[in-house]
Amino acid sequence: MARIVMKFGGTSMAGIERIRGVAARVKREVEAGNEVAVIVSAMAGETDRLVGFCREASALADPREYDVVVASGEQVTSGLLAIALQSAGLKARSWLGWQLPISTSDAHSSARIQDIDTTAVLKAMAGGEVAVVPGFQGLTADNRITTLGRGGSDTSAVALAAALKADRCDIYTDVDGVYTTDPRIVPRARKLDRITYEEMLELASVGAKVLQTRSVELAMKEKVRVQVLSSFSDAPGTMVVDEDEIVEQELIAGVAYNRNEAKVTVVGVPDKPGAVAAIFGPLADASINVDMIVQNIAHASKTTDVTFTVPRTELVRSLDVLAAIKPEIGYAEVLSDDAVAKISVVGVGMKSHAGVAVTMFKALADRGINIQAITTSEIKVSVLIAEEYTELAVRVLHTAYGLDAAA
Amino acid sequence: MARIVMKFGGTSMAGIERIRGVAARVKREVEAGNEVAVIVSAMAGETDRLVGFCREASALADPREYDVVVASGEQVTSGLLAIALQSAGLKARSWLGWQLPISTSDAHSSARIQDIDTTAVLKAMAGGEVAVVPGFQGLTADNRITTLGRGGSDTSAVALAAALKADRCDIYTDVDGVYTTDPRIVPRARKLDRITYEEMLELASVGAKVLQTRSVELAMKEKVRVQVLSSFSDAPGTMVVDEDEIVEQELIAGVAYNRNEAKVTVVGVPDKPGAVAAIFGPLADASINVDMIVQNIAHASKTTDVTFTVPRTELVRSLDVLAAIKPEIGYAEVLSDDAVAKISVVGVGMKSHAGVAVTMFKALADRGINIQAITTSEIKVSVLIAEEYTELAVRVLHTAYGLDAAA
Repeated sequence: MARIVMKFGGTSMAGIERIRGVAARVKREVEAGNEVAVIVSAMAGETDRLVGFCREASALADPREYDVVVASGEQVTSGLLAIALQSAGLKARSWLGWQLPISTSDAHSSARIQDIDTTAVLKAMAGGEVAVVPGFQGLTADNRITTLGRGGSDTSAVALAAALKADRCDIYTDVDGVYTTDPRIVPRARKLDRITYEEMLELASVGAKVLQTRSVELAMKEKVRVQVLSSFSDAPGTMVVDEDEIVEQELIAGVAYNRNEAKVTVVGVPDKPGAVAAIFGPLADASINVDMIVQNIAHASKTTDVTFTVPRTELVRSLDVLAAIKPEIGYAEVLSDDAVAKISVVGVGMKSHAGVAVTMFKALADRGINIQAITTSEIKVSVLIAEEYTELAVRVLHTAYGLDAAA
Repeated sequence: MARIVMKFGGTSMAGIERIRGVAARVKREVEAGNEVAVIVSAMAGETDRLVGFCREASALADPREYDVVVASGEQVTSGLLAIALQSAGLKARSWLGWQLPISTSDAHSSARIQDIDTTAVLKAMAGGEVAVVPGFQGLTADNRITTLGRGGSDTSAVALAAALKADRCDIYTDVDGVYTTDPRIVPRARKLDRITYEEMLELASVGAKVLQTRSVELAMKEKVRVQVLSSFSDAPGTMVVDEDEIVEQELIAGVAYNRNEAKVTVVGVPDKPGAVAAIFGPLADASINVDMIVQNIAHASKTTDVTFTVPRTELVRSLDVLAAIKPEIGYAEVLSDDAVAKISVVGVGMKSHAGVAVTMFKALADRGINIQAITTSEIKVSVLIAEEYTELAVRVLHTAYGLDAAA
């Protein structure tokens, strides 16, 4: 017997027919002898509808009232799933965020879970009752409803699994697991049986959005074993686990890409202490999220060029910030390019394999793909290339690292 | 300065544009120096949508979970109205049923309000903040959401007004008050400035459904002054008040009709003790709501005929019950007619006016309308007639009692 948390997203909860399908999946786990708690999202489209009402009522809606409105979507599905489970012959009840309670910070609309009181729910589960808990919502110390921000139901599921000391947290989505890369680009992409938290974080943050980043961070911190699987098939999914659990470590877990960045180069920055800080300080003050940063040694002219990337949507604002500080810094000019893509190879195995970067650079050079910038982390190597080469680069690297499925 | 409760129905809350209109009305009361609490219904159609989900999930949905689902409609509008009020420059916040709390019985889906804790809300109102409270919902002693049954928001409003010791409870609807009769039948029907609780109850129960019956009973018991008015016009409405408050008492407040009943006559019932009880006992056991009952003295044959009305939808079931008890009672036959209408004249003034009934019978006889049965109460005389005469009878009586508006 195991204790498991099952989480179902909006697509899985879209309409009573699908909710009945969810109930059938839950029933299978209960009949296998497991104690089950279920975290549910709102029906697909419902949160957007409720957010739309709030925005229409006021461009600056009170986040406390916004939370009262949008939290209702998950309240509805939790009640409906409890009904469907009972109808399938199981014992079940809904436990709303304020009933457990799920205590959060008071940062309305992006609150963080602080504590989950599991006393009552554990007792009910021990009695064979399925606990249905709406995701995305919680309660402040002064008794007001909070929400965790978009995608927060993944975090609710992992936090509940941690609080319940669950053996597993199954996240049901509309994909059947985590792939070595985007199957739309590489038809021979393989579903991974296992992936580490760290790899999952890197793959998520560079574009493979299967789980909300916060939920993976929390799972890593609390050592919650997360499984990503499809609510529309019976195929096994991908387990997201600690590195220790992965016996035969692959060198590279996957190849990710991101076409949402733009490249900025500040040319002719005086090579003196403080010059780089003078560039990035004002960008940080403007809440612009700078990603890759590359600076080479100074030219003979005693100036240097600094290249970095920003989100494409922030490019215009970034250029405004740089123009404003030109007199202070005294650089020559600013160049920008929004037709770039970041390609990353990710894998915990690379910590002990210096050859990973060489394989990458050589594979790209063989196809005539020019590398504009490079950054590395312990488990990731990312390069910036011209956007038009995105698909080619992903395919080439997928093959170069031996990730292609057998034909 | 007064303390008032304002209640807005689903039509008034249907969409953000209308919610903004509601906010404007509330603002006027606040700017007039009043302390205001607002009770809101769900958006028109929303409760039906949510009930539909529950029914689709299970024909026998757990009423506790049903309440979790359907209570969300008012949660949404309370948050949205709070946002709209803030946007209009007022201080406002929502107080959900479980936050006040509004304590109810545990009769889920038809709970009764037992107590409303007004400590926090009174403090907020004293500080100039509008309290927005979702109607229709409450909380059981074991911390679960309840709803009060359809139309329950009127009851929520009156109960909150009583608990707050409010000077007035304004119920905003899509009609602008209580009329002497249905204006669709009598174009010269007049809006009443005042009506007593008792008259309102009789008018509501015979078909003039402006306020939910339970809310009027509660207002009468708690002496809450209720005003019915339109959220789509600025015309003054109808005050529902204690009899003492009505100085110039009209003889008759209004004429009501009801086409939802059917007539049943049991012919040849033996004239002996217990025979009538033997008929109505089994009907009561079958939860069939018998309304008018007429029994004349026995014929020379030592038998009597008993006539009564039942809801039309219960006619077939009623006849089945009577057929089953025929051997026991030994009546001759059962006649039934579902093409009947009940016409009632209502007025607290009639307590001291014996002539009311005579006026009624004469006016109907003058038009050749045959009276099939008669019942009277302290403030009402009702007759049963052929359904085809409904409109004629209502018009004739409206004129006979001098209720027609000046041309």
